[in-house]
Amino acid sequence: MTQQQVCTAKHMDHTAIVVKDLEATLRFYEQTFGVKGGEVTEIAEQGVKAVLIPIGHTELELIQPINTTSGVARFLEQRGGDALHHICFEVDDIKGKLRLLEARGVQLVDKEPRRGLAGMIGFLHPRSTGGILIELAEKV
Amino acid sequence: MTQQQVCTAKHMDHTAIVVKDLEATLRFYEQTFGVKGGEVTEIAEQGVKAVLIPIGHTELELIQPINTTSGVARFLEQRGGDALHHICFEVDDIKGKLRLLEARGVQLVDKEPRRGLAGMIGFLHPRSTGGILIELAEKV
Repeated sequence: MTQQQVCTAKHMDHTAIVVKDLEATLRFYEQTFGVKGGEVTEIAEQGVKAVLIPIGHTELELIQPINTTSGVARFLEQRGGDALHHICFEVDDIKGKLRLLEARGVQLVDKEPRRGLAGMIGFLHPRSTGGILIELAEKV
Repeated sequence: MTQQQVCTAKHMDHTAIVVKDLEATLRFYEQTFGVKGGEVTEIAEQGVKAVLIPIGHTELELIQPINTTSGVARFLEQRGGDALHHICFEVDDIKGKLRLLEARGVQLVDKEPRRGLAGMIGFLHPRSTGGILIELAEKV
């Protein structure tokens, strides 16, 4: 087998949970596990608000839909409650990594990097990753 | 409010995925993201085999049921395929932390720490954590 270029995952940047009530969930994690969330940010074009909670070297992300039509709103409805949603790997040169994965036949949700809470980000389609939603993020 | 003792989460030790085919999934992550899994370990009493994949400062765990009766087998069947399963926080003194959480009204799956892949571990019941399965681990 010839050596293929890989999309080196430097670190697991965060794991994300979709929740019904972001403020209550944040309070639960803060009061139970002694952690401290960052600023709650509304990402209007995604129809969500979100917060990152640093825990040691990585982060837990809470995401709450703010409308009923976003993919995240449908996910919450399908699951019937709070549920683990995606994992995010930190990469260098996300633009190049998305190209590389596409060339390897991985279906992309985001063909171009876009600004997200974790930096410049892009999602891979679960169809190409065994059903798991994987985000890539380049810290900026 | 009086200050309550908290179950300090030092780090997010790992995030776990339940998979149908551990070897194929491990190969996918290794070949796609340039990571390298540890040894595949069979945990007979849990009816699973599992592997930890270090990614930067944290790990991704893959778990595959090896019988049809375990909780993990039922989870895989209910989800209809590979799915995110739990998150694990590293703690000190897991025995004390489980006691503390129980005293605070958190329902425990494991009342006493037991040996797991990540060290001495204990699961909290999703009923007490907003529906998310959370594991605590003390590195040993």
